[in-house]
Amino acid sequence: MKVLDHGYVTLVESWGNDERIIEAARMSTDKGFLGWGPNVCKHCKMRPDDFRAKDSCYNGPHEFTPGDEKLLAYLYRHKHMTPFEMAGMIIEVQAPIFVFREWHRHRTQSYNEMSARYIPLPDVNYMPTTERLMLNAGERNRQASSHQGMMCEANADVFQKQLDQAYYQAQSVYSAALSNGVPKELARLILPVGRYSRMRASANLRNWLQFLTLRMDVAAQWEIQQYANAVAELISNKFPRTYELFKS
Amino acid sequence: MKVLDHGYVTLVESWGNDERIIEAARMSTDKGFLGWGPNVCKHCKMRPDDFRAKDSCYNGPHEFTPGDEKLLAYLYRHKHMTPFEMAGMIIEVQAPIFVFREWHRHRTQSYNEMSARYIPLPDVNYMPTTERLMLNAGERNRQASSHQGMMCEANADVFQKQLDQAYYQAQSVYSAALSNGVPKELARLILPVGRYSRMRASANLRNWLQFLTLRMDVAAQWEIQQYANAVAELISNKFPRTYELFKS
Amino acid sequence: MKVLDHGYVTLVESWGNDERIIEAARMSTDKGFLGWGPNVCKHCKMRPDDFRAKDSCYNGPHEFTPGDEKLLAYLYRHKHMTPFEMAGMIIEVQAPIFVFREWHRHRTQSYNEMSARYIPLPDVNYMPTTERLMLNAGERNRQASSHQGMMCEANADVFQKQLDQAYYQAQSVYSAALSNGVPKELARLILPVGRYSRMRASANLRNWLQFLTLRMDVAAQWEIQQYANAVAELISNKFPRTYELFKS
Amino acid sequence: MKVLDHGYVTLVESWGNDERIIEAARMSTDKGFLGWGPNVCKHCKMRPDDFRAKDSCYNGPHEFTPGDEKLLAYLYRHKHMTPFEMAGMIIEVQAPIFVFREWHRHRTQSYNEMSARYIPLPDVNYMPTTERLMLNAGERNRQASSHQGMMCEANADVFQKQLDQAYYQAQSVYSAALSNGVPKELARLILPVGRYSRMRASANLRNWLQFLTLRMDVAAQWEIQQYANAVAELISNKFPRTYELFKS
Repeated sequence: MKVLDHGYVTLVESWGNDERIIEAARMSTDKGFLGWGPNVCKHCKMRPDDFRAKDSCYNGPHEFTPGDEKLLAYLYRHKHMTPFEMAGMIIEVQAPIFVFREWHRHRTQSYNEMSARYIPLPDVNYMPTTERLMLNAGERNRQASSHQGMMCEANADVFQKQLDQAYYQAQSVYSAALSNGVPKELARLILPVGRYSRMRASANLRNWLQFLTLRMDVAAQWEIQQYANAVAELISNKFPRTYELFKS
Repeated sequence: MKVLDHGYVTLVESWGNDERIIEAARMSTDKGFLGWGPNVCKHCKMRPDDFRAKDSCYNGPHEFTPGDEKLLAYLYRHKHMTPFEMAGMIIEVQAPIFVFREWHRHRTQSYNEMSARYIPLPDVNYMPTTERLMLNAGERNRQASSHQGMMCEANADVFQKQLDQAYYQAQSVYSAALSNGVPKELARLILPVGRYSRMRASANLRNWLQFLTLRMDVAAQWEIQQYANAVAELISNKFPRTYELFKS
Repeated sequence: MKVLDHGYVTLVESWGNDERIIEAARMSTDKGFLGWGPNVCKHCKMRPDDFRAKDSCYNGPHEFTPGDEKLLAYLYRHKHMTPFEMAGMIIEVQAPIFVFREWHRHRTQSYNEMSARYIPLPDVNYMPTTERLMLNAGERNRQASSHQGMMCEANADVFQKQLDQAYYQAQSVYSAALSNGVPKELARLILPVGRYSRMRASANLRNWLQFLTLRMDVAAQWEIQQYANAVAELISNKFPRTYELFKS
Repeated sequence: MKVLDHGYVTLVESWGNDERIIEAARMSTDKGFLGWGPNVCKHCKMRPDDFRAKDSCYNGPHEFTPGDEKLLAYLYRHKHMTPFEMAGMIIEVQAPIFVFREWHRHRTQSYNEMSARYIPLPDVNYMPTTERLMLNAGERNRQASSHQGMMCEANADVFQKQLDQAYYQAQSVYSAALSNGVPKELARLILPVGRYSRMRASANLRNWLQFLTLRMDVAAQWEIQQYANAVAELISNKFPRTYELFKS
């Protein structure tokens, strides 16, 4: 799943699913997962649309109880979040260093990242589009607002050219240093935070949802929002009922 | 406490102390802190050098038990580390971004860092000395070793000059971008990981010791070792007996 | 601070304060704590009620900016919680085992508890009052509701007598076992979860607030609510402005 | 997998495997999993026993590099543990409450436990065998040693009888209380810590190994050692190469 100009998010592995969350929550009452769907009779577990359904069961009239999606919703809305720790996901991500700097503040995830101490980082850098650069132009956004001047397409163009040139020069110094025997761990000093790196990240579902809450928020930087959107898509594929609750 | 060319580590606040650790450990047996020093009689709590000391107490001859430094040593050596969570320290640190990138992998600390989304980062950058650049020259160190060429003073000199110039150019692009209304959060793309940032970090003593274990190690990058040494000095001031055990 | 019939909560130590939280948050913009109070002029830092205050300062008319309590409120309401990790508190608690069982599910706290493996637990047990036993009588509370019968004062009385007797018998078996050489770690098998134990608990302010959120809630068991109320009082003493925000 | 008289440990789900750990570790150098086995040529990736193997490859003579089990061993021995966070396991456990009390001190696991607030706990209690009761008899084990008397088979017999009777009485009071409308959350006060409960627990492999380190240790109580042994067996099935390293 492509993100920004050279980044991606890709699923390595997931575990658990929406049913598993119900099972874990039901530990407290010693029942398991009963089934999704409209509802089941609390005596005979028969559903209203079952072909064997009559007006009554061995215990008198059917008493249809809510389907397990109601328990899932109850857990989520009342913030009983520990069952959501019984599922999770490992992903691989390529993103600029400044995005990883924000990402790594999530201390409940596990990380393994490419290291410029061990290998030269490939010469891949993030170049924001003009559209992105103009995103908040004209607004009085405290965080993203201009420092002094006023953003316009001409200025965006100038910045892109200067950034491109500066990336090029940084790479020249970097590769010259490596050729001259400067240790990798010091040659990297000049690498800009716009350079791409790569990592694997693992977390349980509860913590991924917390990541999404903070990083899909409008207050988050646009770039990490794009990554959060990609993570959200993976989650909605693997845990569709939980994701539905998250979104609503 | 100065570290590298423009960095520092400074104590904001600490809590607990070596005695507090003993007290916490003694919760399990419902005793408190008894005292450092050679030893005390287990019946009358008198010490051998007490002026009232005779050969015996109300319970017969004195039975001198070990001083509490022995319990501290026992806890530490047998890895009963939870009592060491009952003390801690908050520090303020100025360090290059590449050092913070390593530091922030310690997920048991709390961080508040200066943010280039909100203010322009000051133009302060890390310049390694020739001595530092030559540190592992000639060695066959897998991590730090040269990529192709062979490190020598001439090459170190070239690198310092190029790095200085590249820092200068990055700053030119950065400040021009800010002047032209490029959002701070994007102008920063060109900032090199050698630029200094600043943060506060809080952790309990157990986790600070874990930080020292990993970052004072010879396998850690020399720069973060310098910071770890500074942190170690703060710890040895505030928790001298625990630090003694850590070092030995 | 007495809680239930034989329990208590007491402050061992705290660190940080409301000002320290502001300081930590201001790391991002490189300013420190500016002061509480109505507001200050953003140019000269003078307050409206300052005796030197005139209509203007060196920069023209005063522009009064909000006092730092507004930043504190902003942080809290927008869930920027990391600055609240820069303060904390260690307490000592005596509570029944079933309360500790719930308490220890808070995995961000540090614990040191009395251990029945090492010393015999004192014969102190929790006896709920009649008022407490009747608390939800008549209600259709799913959790607390009666199993079969209907709660009334006569039944409460019977339960108290039976519980008292059962506590007594458990203690008889326990002390006989200890006298007969049964290892402490096995003699304890018969100890009821109503027996008191003791611990120290440490957490940062953010995590204490999370504890309060879950345990002062009406859905929490009444007994742990009493402990949470006691913790809340300690927090309101040490961090009055933060606690005010928590409550509102 | 049966543990003690009425307990069990059973695998719910695992994720990752020994290969996945290598892949995660190789993020730092941008290579993937290369293969177990004796070794491979670092140029052509051919193995010594490959039928196409000749003395040389396109790059000159073969240079056989170590198989990935050597990297796994290197990571484990040098405590590079983050790659071991990229695998994990969810289990279901039935164990006495006093075992869960120790287990839940592992704050890096996720738990969902049966709750006596919501359902009556089944009348299943732990009865130690005579052999178990005599385990440390005669020894001077500080923790497990007798309080006053001397353990012998006669005393073990007496304890078993008294414990059995006390369990019976506790259950009588419990079920009477439930019948009389005492809230479940209070009726449970009399339940002994020898009673069985049930939970699901999830952790990554690094944290499961840490659990094993502490709980397979001779200093751990014999009962939790039995559970740790069962967990170890599940781990050795799912992560055989990692477990081999743990054991050695």
